[in-house]
Amino acid sequence: MIVVMKPGASKECIQHVIDLVRDYGLKEHPIYGTDRTVIACIGDKRAVDKGAIENAPMVEKVMPILAPYKMASLEVKKDVSQICIGPSQFPIGGEKIGIIAGPCAVESRDQILSVAETLQHAGCIGLRGGAYKPRTSPYSFQGLGLEGLEILAEAREQTGLAVVTEVIGVEQVESVAEYSDVLQIGARNMQHYPLLEAVGKTNKPVLLKRGMSATLDEFLLAAEYIISAGNPNVILCERGIRTHESYVRNTLPLAIIPALRERTHLPIVIDPSHGTGHAYMVPSMCLGAIAAGADGLIIECHPDPEHAASDGAQSITPKVLSELMVKLKRVAEAVDRQL
Amino acid sequence: MIVVMKPGASKECIQHVIDLVRDYGLKEHPIYGTDRTVIACIGDKRAVDKGAIENAPMVEKVMPILAPYKMASLEVKKDVSQICIGPSQFPIGGEKIGIIAGPCAVESRDQILSVAETLQHAGCIGLRGGAYKPRTSPYSFQGLGLEGLEILAEAREQTGLAVVTEVIGVEQVESVAEYSDVLQIGARNMQHYPLLEAVGKTNKPVLLKRGMSATLDEFLLAAEYIISAGNPNVILCERGIRTHESYVRNTLPLAIIPALRERTHLPIVIDPSHGTGHAYMVPSMCLGAIAAGADGLIIECHPDPEHAASDGAQSITPKVLSELMVKLKRVAEAVDRQL
Amino acid sequence: MIVVMKPGASKECIQHVIDLVRDYGLKEHPIYGTDRTVIACIGDKRAVDKGAIENAPMVEKVMPILAPYKMASLEVKKDVSQICIGPSQFPIGGEKIGIIAGPCAVESRDQILSVAETLQHAGCIGLRGGAYKPRTSPYSFQGLGLEGLEILAEAREQTGLAVVTEVIGVEQVESVAEYSDVLQIGARNMQHYPLLEAVGKTNKPVLLKRGMSATLDEFLLAAEYIISAGNPNVILCERGIRTHESYVRNTLPLAIIPALRERTHLPIVIDPSHGTGHAYMVPSMCLGAIAAGADGLIIECHPDPEHAASDGAQSITPKVLSELMVKLKRVAEAVDRQL
Amino acid sequence: MIVVMKPGASKECIQHVIDLVRDYGLKEHPIYGTDRTVIACIGDKRAVDKGAIENAPMVEKVMPILAPYKMASLEVKKDVSQICIGPSQFPIGGEKIGIIAGPCAVESRDQILSVAETLQHAGCIGLRGGAYKPRTSPYSFQGLGLEGLEILAEAREQTGLAVVTEVIGVEQVESVAEYSDVLQIGARNMQHYPLLEAVGKTNKPVLLKRGMSATLDEFLLAAEYIISAGNPNVILCERGIRTHESYVRNTLPLAIIPALRERTHLPIVIDPSHGTGHAYMVPSMCLGAIAAGADGLIIECHPDPEHAASDGAQSITPKVLSELMVKLKRVAEAVDRQL
Repeated sequence: MIVVMKPGASKECIQHVIDLVRDYGLKEHPIYGTDRTVIACIGDKRAVDKGAIENAPMVEKVMPILAPYKMASLEVKKDVSQICIGPSQFPIGGEKIGIIAGPCAVESRDQILSVAETLQHAGCIGLRGGAYKPRTSPYSFQGLGLEGLEILAEAREQTGLAVVTEVIGVEQVESVAEYSDVLQIGARNMQHYPLLEAVGKTNKPVLLKRGMSATLDEFLLAAEYIISAGNPNVILCERGIRTHESYVRNTLPLAIIPALRERTHLPIVIDPSHGTGHAYMVPSMCLGAIAAGADGLIIECHPDPEHAASDGAQSITPKVLSELMVKLKRVAEAVDRQL
Repeated sequence: MIVVMKPGASKECIQHVIDLVRDYGLKEHPIYGTDRTVIACIGDKRAVDKGAIENAPMVEKVMPILAPYKMASLEVKKDVSQICIGPSQFPIGGEKIGIIAGPCAVESRDQILSVAETLQHAGCIGLRGGAYKPRTSPYSFQGLGLEGLEILAEAREQTGLAVVTEVIGVEQVESVAEYSDVLQIGARNMQHYPLLEAVGKTNKPVLLKRGMSATLDEFLLAAEYIISAGNPNVILCERGIRTHESYVRNTLPLAIIPALRERTHLPIVIDPSHGTGHAYMVPSMCLGAIAAGADGLIIECHPDPEHAASDGAQSITPKVLSELMVKLKRVAEAVDRQL
Repeated sequence: MIVVMKPGASKECIQHVIDLVRDYGLKEHPIYGTDRTVIACIGDKRAVDKGAIENAPMVEKVMPILAPYKMASLEVKKDVSQICIGPSQFPIGGEKIGIIAGPCAVESRDQILSVAETLQHAGCIGLRGGAYKPRTSPYSFQGLGLEGLEILAEAREQTGLAVVTEVIGVEQVESVAEYSDVLQIGARNMQHYPLLEAVGKTNKPVLLKRGMSATLDEFLLAAEYIISAGNPNVILCERGIRTHESYVRNTLPLAIIPALRERTHLPIVIDPSHGTGHAYMVPSMCLGAIAAGADGLIIECHPDPEHAASDGAQSITPKVLSELMVKLKRVAEAVDRQL
Repeated sequence: MIVVMKPGASKECIQHVIDLVRDYGLKEHPIYGTDRTVIACIGDKRAVDKGAIENAPMVEKVMPILAPYKMASLEVKKDVSQICIGPSQFPIGGEKIGIIAGPCAVESRDQILSVAETLQHAGCIGLRGGAYKPRTSPYSFQGLGLEGLEILAEAREQTGLAVVTEVIGVEQVESVAEYSDVLQIGARNMQHYPLLEAVGKTNKPVLLKRGMSATLDEFLLAAEYIISAGNPNVILCERGIRTHESYVRNTLPLAIIPALRERTHLPIVIDPSHGTGHAYMVPSMCLGAIAAGADGLIIECHPDPEHAASDGAQSITPKVLSELMVKLKRVAEAVDRQL
């Protein structure tokens, strides 16, 4: 941590900050520059709220040096973690790229079984679909609940696909963990800490979606919550951020892929459906994400998007997906990966 | 809802959309313009996911007409709702402006009792303080829990201040409701729907903070979740949004005050502490918020911000608050309100 | 400047950075912490592009300490600069708050003379109106040009109001300076450096609008361009930033008022019309801005907004303005200022 | 254009809007829904400021239907325009993808000639480099001016590369057009209309960078300015937008590629250097951009980034670029394009 004093800070003010720094168990290291004094603080402890020092007289700003997360960081592990999911234990984070697809919501048994079969033939390794849906409006379709989970499990048995489904509250963790191969934490729950702790106490892989305005540190701290609760199997998922752009539902920042690689060993999956909000953009963003280095994709795919109960605008059809898979394979090979 | 067709859409495409619109139980009303066709749809039902129609061929965009919330809207109630809180049943939303203050976290009995006394003398009507803290890092202070609630309740008995404290999970709703006068939903939980439903089933007033990148519709839909679960006593709280600005922790958009007045009857409280992140900015934003029409303020105030367990950078001291209250009264009177 | 090395940086990497720092004429001051090494650099020169050091091996980040502007900063001058405008030499930045109003564009002589008279009676001190309009679309009304300037000058003669009008290109600086009392630089030109230099070579006060996504440093550096070209008379104007919010045209961040006060001696004017985009929000934001400490307001006011050639949605009528002035006076007095 | 009335709008209010719509030369088409009345307006003229209607009593909002640009739109031309640049008349927008690279600023003759040779061998088709630099700080290196242009022209003669260089003011258009093959309009000048008009009057191809918070409509309207002034040869360049993200200089939204394809025939070039701000992210974003469908890239490349006069942090070395070109070729082929 570096404390920057305002120009003209008196000796007393500087000493006051030094005392404060010592109170926090840190060792000060003042540097008297031409324009102002800065106080470097050694022995940083992640748990201290150093912002408090900003309130001391004549302090201009406090700049952290250390990343606030540890177990999610490269300091703990240099290589990309491989997190194995589903009946085939497909390793997300390995040389092979895993494609997960499926409808936004589980609407019926027929819908899921038929989609799952197409996905399997097209080379996907996971089936997504919401049984419990966090909906912006209380008047929207809220999901089939337990019945949805049973349908997903049946589809897994028929196809061998890994089931990825969202858990929206602490209450459902146990039942979702029973049926699903991967517990998805939605963007809106990325900072719902009781839920992060609850999935951290299971032994199921977790797909953690970045909050729509979360910083990179907040994203990795959310992962840290899960890991520090005992579950190291966290897959990071970028699904777009909220910006001023209105031609998309969210802005998909693919540069997060190299940025995360510089900071964490956790594997990275991209969601181009929420990341754009429009079906016609999904294929390009899938191709772009793989070329940019993603370890996997999670794509909304619905047999009849015009009648989808949710997210119809951003769902591609199984036919579009099947054709896309052929191109994805070629791009994956061009960057020395495989599908 | 208005469906805009792309230029050159064929009769078949237009008919296809008309059929789709009828499937959704709406009545179509096509208008053939010089450049393109638009199809107005009458009989809008809020529960239908109309975005799905965007996936139909040659549809350019679908534009909603109706606000997606109802019970929070002015269509239901024209005047500002007065929501009475605490032992004195102070009406938030009336002519008098309610000032709520206190530390970010309950740290000790002494801290709270001493702060509460100052607040009462200064003319505040509520005491805030977190017993359960949602912290970005798993290594940060997580709050005193039940003990914190008991301390808050004791402070209320001594001072008559209304206690406002956050509930971070469904699990705590019952115990927080037992001790607190107002249940606060934090920004990070604004879209944690199980929690919204749970507080909606209590009879306690709810202070609902806007998510840091929530739209106005999403904010009012979160309120709608609570109201539709049975609890009409929702106080809206703006606490700043995340933008590109880095001189503040969050950007505080005071224009939301007149914007909400145009749309909802719910009263509006401003949080200038999270809304700026820096203690030195808090007084101006308090004054600005009241002049702009806020019904109340919620301010972080700590006797020793340099040693605060959290949010030290944005906490003002009781002394600063007391001086500020005098100015707030004057500004309130200048806009025909009182403190 | 502080250079933060990655964990595990070798002696050679650290020495390489030290050599580089010396190349830039700075003196290094390495601090070997428990987790990583940071190198504080003393003797900062503002002209050097220190970001280049980020490209050296094992450098994690480079953090600047000094603000990049100087003449705009409080290091040069502690008190708010008073910048006198118009025939009456009204001092913007003094105890009195200056209200400038008028239509977006000069549309006709009648329009301007009639508006100007109302403004004068209501207590305004400046008349705004565009003769040259920077329009987003090439098909929009582009302003009356020289004729518009002449009309504005005539209005000044009749009313004594200071004329504030935009200069959109280097080509117009001379003629606008001839007719206008204040040269306005629009948000879209805040970083058009040839224009900043050109107005910096005149002796007219400049109203510099913040770019819609400019940082605070960029804003003050734009002012620095003007001052360093020879013209110290810069009035800063906040007109809202672009964010994800769609209920407003721009988000108006009033916290920039205290933030600028901490950094610069230049006076601050708020534009609540562009800052919101909707006439019904303008009165609250005017009141809020004055309570928050603004030195002036610039408001769009049109006798017939429904037929305005531009910005009709955000223009208030002279009648609304006159009523508002009464309230503004009261709020100004409540914060120990006058109108 | 669709005018949405508030609920409960009286007959008089509706008639008032109808009269207003007719004033603007449009034909009204009112639709009386269950909850509210909307008035569709036929015969839209792009030049009218319809926002003005929002100021009429009981109008809730006005929603435009038509895109505000015409010549840049697909309504005028369905296929991607090929814009030929440089001595070889390389067609940007064709099957082949054009890679343009070079340093941020022209610093010396040696620097440019040596970089240009490497670029040519690596397969690039254009050389970028700033002779006139728009710098955020008045104290930063401002470019070599005319001497820089001469050096670029010499490099073109030796290598056959197309020269791409920025023009920062109307004053330089003539001289830059004399030496350069492509006139670059920087992000900060995207809405400097006099400059857009000036380059629109030359016959040189223009590389138009998107403003850092421009909307898609504003971006295409800037292109429309150039085209409507007489120059149809506009290449669109995305260089990242400003968001809350701080791990990047700008957020690079690659989904703009499919979004622009749906709206315009102009070719699209991506700038991953400004689009990220960090050299280590540039290769992934180059690969991602090509996979996502870009027609070209413009990359900052400097022989000694640690000593670059500007943008050192985001410049890759010629060695990194040469290796990257091999991968770019493979990805281009995987999406049926060539380098």
